[in-house]
Amino acid sequence: MQRVELTEDLSFSRIIHGLWRLTEWNMSNEEVLTLIEDCLKAGITTFDHADIYGNYTCEKKFGDALALKPELRKEMEIVTKCGIKLVSSNRPQHSIKSYDTSKEHIIASVNQSLQNLQTDYIDVLLIHRPDPFMDPAKVAEAFTQLKIEGKVRHFGVSNFKRSQFKMLQSYLDFPLITNQIELSAYQLENFEDGTVDLCQEERIAPMAWSPLAGGSIFSSNEERAKNLRITLEKIAGEIGATAIDEVLYAWLLSHPANIMPIVGSGKMNRIESAIRALDLSLSRDQWFEILQVAMEREIA
Amino acid sequence: MQRVELTEDLSFSRIIHGLWRLTEWNMSNEEVLTLIEDCLKAGITTFDHADIYGNYTCEKKFGDALALKPELRKEMEIVTKCGIKLVSSNRPQHSIKSYDTSKEHIIASVNQSLQNLQTDYIDVLLIHRPDPFMDPAKVAEAFTQLKIEGKVRHFGVSNFKRSQFKMLQSYLDFPLITNQIELSAYQLENFEDGTVDLCQEERIAPMAWSPLAGGSIFSSNEERAKNLRITLEKIAGEIGATAIDEVLYAWLLSHPANIMPIVGSGKMNRIESAIRALDLSLSRDQWFEILQVAMEREIA
Amino acid sequence: MQRVELTEDLSFSRIIHGLWRLTEWNMSNEEVLTLIEDCLKAGITTFDHADIYGNYTCEKKFGDALALKPELRKEMEIVTKCGIKLVSSNRPQHSIKSYDTSKEHIIASVNQSLQNLQTDYIDVLLIHRPDPFMDPAKVAEAFTQLKIEGKVRHFGVSNFKRSQFKMLQSYLDFPLITNQIELSAYQLENFEDGTVDLCQEERIAPMAWSPLAGGSIFSSNEERAKNLRITLEKIAGEIGATAIDEVLYAWLLSHPANIMPIVGSGKMNRIESAIRALDLSLSRDQWFEILQVAMEREIA
Repeated sequence: MQRVELTEDLSFSRIIHGLWRLTEWNMSNEEVLTLIEDCLKAGITTFDHADIYGNYTCEKKFGDALALKPELRKEMEIVTKCGIKLVSSNRPQHSIKSYDTSKEHIIASVNQSLQNLQTDYIDVLLIHRPDPFMDPAKVAEAFTQLKIEGKVRHFGVSNFKRSQFKMLQSYLDFPLITNQIELSAYQLENFEDGTVDLCQEERIAPMAWSPLAGGSIFSSNEERAKNLRITLEKIAGEIGATAIDEVLYAWLLSHPANIMPIVGSGKMNRIESAIRALDLSLSRDQWFEILQVAMEREIA
Repeated sequence: MQRVELTEDLSFSRIIHGLWRLTEWNMSNEEVLTLIEDCLKAGITTFDHADIYGNYTCEKKFGDALALKPELRKEMEIVTKCGIKLVSSNRPQHSIKSYDTSKEHIIASVNQSLQNLQTDYIDVLLIHRPDPFMDPAKVAEAFTQLKIEGKVRHFGVSNFKRSQFKMLQSYLDFPLITNQIELSAYQLENFEDGTVDLCQEERIAPMAWSPLAGGSIFSSNEERAKNLRITLEKIAGEIGATAIDEVLYAWLLSHPANIMPIVGSGKMNRIESAIRALDLSLSRDQWFEILQVAMEREIA
Repeated sequence: MQRVELTEDLSFSRIIHGLWRLTEWNMSNEEVLTLIEDCLKAGITTFDHADIYGNYTCEKKFGDALALKPELRKEMEIVTKCGIKLVSSNRPQHSIKSYDTSKEHIIASVNQSLQNLQTDYIDVLLIHRPDPFMDPAKVAEAFTQLKIEGKVRHFGVSNFKRSQFKMLQSYLDFPLITNQIELSAYQLENFEDGTVDLCQEERIAPMAWSPLAGGSIFSSNEERAKNLRITLEKIAGEIGATAIDEVLYAWLLSHPANIMPIVGSGKMNRIESAIRALDLSLSRDQWFEILQVAMEREIA
């Protein structure tokens, strides 16, 4: 499996496993452990979490499985996030959905994540959403403390636009090493509004959430989705892909920005679609053919 | 009264008094002097002007009052602006509303402001609006000359977006020290388009004009305004505010960007609402509750 | 003819001749040579090309004329572009309109341009459009190689927005020296979205394509076009212009950003309109009067 160097001392597997629906998969701890081991065997060593996934339950589910075989920890990179507060029976003190990037919340959230994940350190902590109430100096204090304490090795953001990234970066003594953003052939906003440009300018490889557009490409009856499916199927035939999800992954993987798709499935055969896409070769013309159908217009 | 350090040698009172309607208040010079003294007693030492306010009459009205007690000058900071030309019987040479950021206009405008305000120096001069016809090298020449002559101590801008701010700043040997922008719970554009991020990135405290949205929150029959009033009233009860304008000020004052609301009233009881808001404590949840109603949707 | 210094060793004539319709003019090589010589006599020394103009034919048409009198080469600056691939009988290998900023394509395109233009060097090569599939490191490699080989003296871009420009610039050891963008009183987007600000911040003079809005100002029956014509005619009378195209050129030429309009005509009397505009003096008020009608609203 191809790897992406994020810093001198940290690399990710090009395909990342996402755990946001782990609880929904109704797996036993042993089954989760098997999934983790299957991923590792396939070369997927990077696992993407957030405190809030599964209504605050997914990190612990993963940690319980990891506890069955703690020596696996050193073979993987764990990403988690903080900064969103959900109204949840698991957080009765929350009365409204809000963002919280206060020093106290960031540190408390990381401590909870460490406990849930049953690990001593997080490889990369992301601020989950840009917080309009952010005090960047306090975020910097929290990050610095967590780094010194060895609880978090590196920091990044998620869903940040250019002005938000540049602003937070200006308060930190170390670089934000990734931006996890929504990227797919069906959801082009971050290609169009300068966010992918920002990643290239900052030399950071973006993590792509919803690389299959949450499945809506497959199910939608909208003209745009239907046309996209037709084009993806045509190109699947041309490049020897067995299904259009492989083409969707290949569309991201072939982009020069070193995009790392997050695959959020509990089934290895689904995960293997993304891995197979690493071997598919999409030509520039095919890339633009998909783009054109997705934009519903020719390029200028 | 809390103060905000803008530079090593300049601070503003957190609440700023705005004079854009001074002429409408129909006050005698003595009444204006009393208003000034009441503000100073309350800790409001920063007064916000523009050449054009009151159809080019407000600066002089203020200056005439100040002339009754010129020793007050050293107890206050005066902000004024230039760069808009209004069609006005007081400027018969203007044939069309336009911007003018030429060296000649900036210097002439400052000289006129100094004469109107009956003072030797302006603490901060702002370019009132981004001028699409701006020659930034000429603005820099004007600023430098005014600084050397001691007529203006510091410079800033108003209503500038990120690209406009970065562009003008790149021509100056000294920092722009503030950006006066429209900010209120009812008018979120500058929160949403990166302008508040810019202020935080540049370490400049923004001055907020129309912190009560020009009163439209109070009077509008739109669903959004009505829902916002209901929420503001609820939160007023929760935090011990006597009226919703205090909550609106507190919403800005509690934001980490060090926002300085401009209060444009001739009545001390109205001004005191803003001062009382300094003692109100708005929780993060309450801040987001207001934001959510103002956005008419939950956060992402 | 006024000249614009782009670098220490390169200047352009303020008015640039554009050859995108050269083939349509149905001229003999001798007639093209006469046009070139008439331009040079009038002081227009900068000629703007692109590989794709005239369905990949215009560069060669120009080169064939230049070959009749090759000593003219050293009296002119040649700009050309690459990065768009058209579906064309002249490029049978292209199956879809796409962008291509790969190292291979850039270098092959320049080699072809040199052959077509029958010259040893291009003064400025532009990337024609921002390519969403760009690998900026590869663009940098191509540019560096072409510079070392002496095939291209300087590099720039066309139609780049702020984030795209900053991103590509960050990969280059030398500055991008211009951005060729659509600019006219009828098409204000680049004034409004920060692209002109960017040019001023980067100290680059923009080249303006479609300075007459492709003629649509003259022919459109839309209210906006009609009102603009009325205003342009009024101002033509005020400043002594013989026709509204001169006013349109003057509107761009009077802007402080050192805008260089590209005139794409084969008729010297049309080209002379732009030259005459250099002697017209448009006041700030007149500039804003045109802007206001073009925006269909007063300035803020």
